[in-house]
Amino acid sequence: MLAQTQRLTLVEQVAYQIQEKIESSEWQVGTRIPPEPELMEQLQVSRNTLREAIRALTYAGLLKTRQGDGTYVCSSSVLGSVIRKVIEHTDKFESLEVRYALEREAAALAALRRDEEDLAALRTCLDQCRQAAVQQDLEAYAHWDVEFHKMVIAASHNQLMANLYNHISEALQNMILEMKDLKNVDFYLDSHALLYQAIADQNGHQAEEAVRLYIDKARTQEEHL
Amino acid sequence: MLAQTQRLTLVEQVAYQIQEKIESSEWQVGTRIPPEPELMEQLQVSRNTLREAIRALTYAGLLKTRQGDGTYVCSSSVLGSVIRKVIEHTDKFESLEVRYALEREAAALAALRRDEEDLAALRTCLDQCRQAAVQQDLEAYAHWDVEFHKMVIAASHNQLMANLYNHISEALQNMILEMKDLKNVDFYLDSHALLYQAIADQNGHQAEEAVRLYIDKARTQEEHL
Repeated sequence: MLAQTQRLTLVEQVAYQIQEKIESSEWQVGTRIPPEPELMEQLQVSRNTLREAIRALTYAGLLKTRQGDGTYVCSSSVLGSVIRKVIEHTDKFESLEVRYALEREAAALAALRRDEEDLAALRTCLDQCRQAAVQQDLEAYAHWDVEFHKMVIAASHNQLMANLYNHISEALQNMILEMKDLKNVDFYLDSHALLYQAIADQNGHQAEEAVRLYIDKARTQEEHL
Repeated sequence: MLAQTQRLTLVEQVAYQIQEKIESSEWQVGTRIPPEPELMEQLQVSRNTLREAIRALTYAGLLKTRQGDGTYVCSSSVLGSVIRKVIEHTDKFESLEVRYALEREAAALAALRRDEEDLAALRTCLDQCRQAAVQQDLEAYAHWDVEFHKMVIAASHNQLMANLYNHISEALQNMILEMKDLKNVDFYLDSHALLYQAIADQNGHQAEEAVRLYIDKARTQEEHL
């Protein structure tokens, strides 16, 4: 039974409970949420309250109701869905400048704070990128390239940075997929390997320099599209 | 009359219409929104639909209903309210690292792109900061200090950066107010003046250095609290 507080309405309390299940990944992105009767029982609320909470979450971009098919989780956090909407309407050069700001600082912090686990994760991403490049598998490449950048941010051990960045990364993946071919992939593989080495060597300055290299390359590529 | 589309429910459409009034500042933060009957007439919707839209916007953090007193606008955008919630739960050192990432890059871009209008706005903020410091008016100081940082970001002429930063700046203002006295204010005035001069001189490297100075100082201050 839900504890009634002074500040939140019942609908809000139910919405927050559902939001928590989504943000904690108990309910994963892309999956269907349990049917109405089950949720009413689980949360001990009426159908109307539940429906209103679900509509609020739909509006906030976390859920999507497909007619005749139930309700699906479509984003892992409110912040994510909001940032994604903003970035989709942003000029690519502006996005690259924001990426540069966050990735450069994260790279410098990662060089300071990375542990063995971080380094192993980064190596895995690099290996998978190389393998995808050899197989000319653009989709796999885009996935592991984004994972690599996320792992660099994670190695900064700054949760707020990781939080902001994770939400930008979905837009990033689309940007990589738009490259359409793997023409410049060797350049990115080399600069990413350079970034990995700088982080491993705890060389913050070199790490920032590696970020500058690949961001500049991406900018030049955009200019030629 | 609202145009029905395939993709949005009526509640969502009404919520988006209200959101637009808020984001465009037609309805300003802190003001009360028009009473229910007026909105029902204006948007041509039923009471239930309107109420549900308002609850969705309340959940998204844009509106707040005060019992017996009507509904108020409490944030100018969904992104703003979401980022504010995240930052309020974030460690101060992490926030400073994210500020450093964004402010350093914005300072370098501002040195490249600033125009006369940007420089005039920056000078106004600096003057107001100095005046508030002389008068030992912490509240006025916090206001103009934050305005100065926002103007630096605005001078980067990157909308996405400004958008992200504007939402961080509310939390920033609270951080400055928590300083409680103006003990180190001379240091901040000097480093901000240095940043202004570097931007005026189009010296990107010096601008980044000025940001490093005041962020390092803030970090040291936090360590001593």
